[in-house]
Amino acid sequence: MFISFSAMAGGESQMKELEALVSSIRPIEGELIKKTQERLDRKTKPMRSLGRLEDLACRYCAARATLEPTLPKKALVVMAADHGVASEGVSAYPQEVTRQMLLNFAHGGAAINALARQVSAELVVVDMGVVEALPASAGVRACRIGAGTQNMTRGPAMSVPQAKQAILAGAGIARELADGGFSLMGIGEMGIANTTAASALLVAYTGVPITEATGRGTGIDDAILARKVQVIERAIAVNRPDRAKPLEVLAKLGGFEIAGLAGVILSAAAGRVPVIIDGFISGAAALAAIKIAPAARDYLVASHRSAENGHGLLLEALELQPLFDLNLRLGEGSGAALAMNFVDAAIRILAEMATFESAGVSDKTASK
Amino acid sequence: MFISFSAMAGGESQMKELEALVSSIRPIEGELIKKTQERLDRKTKPMRSLGRLEDLACRYCAARATLEPTLPKKALVVMAADHGVASEGVSAYPQEVTRQMLLNFAHGGAAINALARQVSAELVVVDMGVVEALPASAGVRACRIGAGTQNMTRGPAMSVPQAKQAILAGAGIARELADGGFSLMGIGEMGIANTTAASALLVAYTGVPITEATGRGTGIDDAILARKVQVIERAIAVNRPDRAKPLEVLAKLGGFEIAGLAGVILSAAAGRVPVIIDGFISGAAALAAIKIAPAARDYLVASHRSAENGHGLLLEALELQPLFDLNLRLGEGSGAALAMNFVDAAIRILAEMATFESAGVSDKTASK
Repeated sequence: MFISFSAMAGGESQMKELEALVSSIRPIEGELIKKTQERLDRKTKPMRSLGRLEDLACRYCAARATLEPTLPKKALVVMAADHGVASEGVSAYPQEVTRQMLLNFAHGGAAINALARQVSAELVVVDMGVVEALPASAGVRACRIGAGTQNMTRGPAMSVPQAKQAILAGAGIARELADGGFSLMGIGEMGIANTTAASALLVAYTGVPITEATGRGTGIDDAILARKVQVIERAIAVNRPDRAKPLEVLAKLGGFEIAGLAGVILSAAAGRVPVIIDGFISGAAALAAIKIAPAARDYLVASHRSAENGHGLLLEALELQPLFDLNLRLGEGSGAALAMNFVDAAIRILAEMATFESAGVSDKTASK
Repeated sequence: MFISFSAMAGGESQMKELEALVSSIRPIEGELIKKTQERLDRKTKPMRSLGRLEDLACRYCAARATLEPTLPKKALVVMAADHGVASEGVSAYPQEVTRQMLLNFAHGGAAINALARQVSAELVVVDMGVVEALPASAGVRACRIGAGTQNMTRGPAMSVPQAKQAILAGAGIARELADGGFSLMGIGEMGIANTTAASALLVAYTGVPITEATGRGTGIDDAILARKVQVIERAIAVNRPDRAKPLEVLAKLGGFEIAGLAGVILSAAAGRVPVIIDGFISGAAALAAIKIAPAARDYLVASHRSAENGHGLLLEALELQPLFDLNLRLGEGSGAALAMNFVDAAIRILAEMATFESAGVSDKTASK
């Protein structure tokens, strides 16, 4: 299930870099999970009574390869790009909203800004390729692969070299963050029509029916939803994605921000940094990432189950159980930011609680 | 469904005080929910795309009777008491653990200490009546109604005057906190055998079968669980609780900490302070509170669905939908503390996000 190099038409060095990245990802060690659980079991609480918070602590420690974690230094990477398929009329919003929202992120006025502030996460906003570039003064990091993808109903959304370039751009950002001491990342996205791309990827990677993989995105009505399903049908018929070639699937049906986020995941995993996925689109990026490098799955945390139709199937394909379901359907990394509170809580439990011995508390009765 | 005064054998002034408290609780205004939602709808996000986070913001504003909320000042009230029914062998832990954990709370080593620190909540630890009193130096607030309740399989756990005294003690603490500017409260508890009391209350208030209302608490095995069910059967047979007399039901089958927390809820509601419920036992306190004063329900937020059997039925009886399910079964207010992160997030969304107009973002296409 690793990269199908036959499909890679790009430069030799790009290919080597991606190959090296994928092969540098190591599965997490079960022994570290076990040892962290043993430490939790000595804390003054009934065994396993903090449920999935304990699992989070174990997974975080195993990912970080430490038994003495400190509170994570957190970054949220939010990538935006435009989608050629938007011209098919699959969204409730006009395409210029992608760029407008990027500026809103830069100015601090979006939901993700408020939520990133709450968890003290560094917010990294990346232009992976909106139609019209932003001025350098906007404070948005430019990693533009192009002025939006092509319309996937007429051919591939991007070329394989573009997909590789986007992955490596995301990987570079994650590497910088890991080198800067960030120990927990969250991912989010913005891109008018990108639920269409995400649904198409889910269908191509898993074979689920298009209608079950397709939802209302930002809030489309029945007529647009029917059109969206037809658009995905055409995109699949035209591109004939082969799931044995995961990178090619990503190129044909994905988006620059989706490929970029897949790169963030691969590089974070290589650097032993857990990544919190947000909703449907960042989930599709995660699916692409684990199809390219299955070991990356060990570093993923699913934040929430969104209101988007198809997200349940996507989480099943990722084999991840979300932490909460608040009927969110915003994207931007909003759910990932909220989930960071749970990771902080899990690490505090591990780092700050007394043990039965240190607190002089009796453990279970022996009378059982 | 208000208090059955015929059942009240206590002092005239106590009765008057409780009556005044109950009648001072006002339902929240639907108009404030509507206006808060309208404000949220102008923010740069698809309408209702933040789902239940938006509901939380609306409810908080309506409870506080404000359209311009600031981040809540938060308090967690954790009450502990012992239960006579513990002598029936219904718990996995010995009774002295109640007092030991109270000291652990006071020393900052319990899960709730770590979680309260995370959300910057003031932690108020109250001894409502553990068997052996703590030294004054322990830093625990003493509101002792007695040295633990009586064994409810042989008669009422407490007298009606004791129940009133416990409610008024809790109400006094919540009033102090509200007067001190606290605008969000969470409740939690500690008390070996108190899931037995909570299950008995659920059965008495709703009529659900005992087996469906009874669970494993801190982790009892099948044999102890079978005994626990029999103990509750006997407690109900002996006390013959009449659900038309909610205060009497609370006295017969409750606990000092459960009655105290019901008092916290009543007084918080009277002071327009929302209260986040934790798990099964604080949920039983909430059920008692709304049976005594139905309008108090408007001020309640359910944090999580716990792993305890019967919690789902309890949440149904409360008509509240929990915010998350992490398989917690600790109590102490742990879930309430975690949920405070969501309230903070909801208020930040409302207070910090730009509007479509202010950010220059296009709203939905008119082309639908």
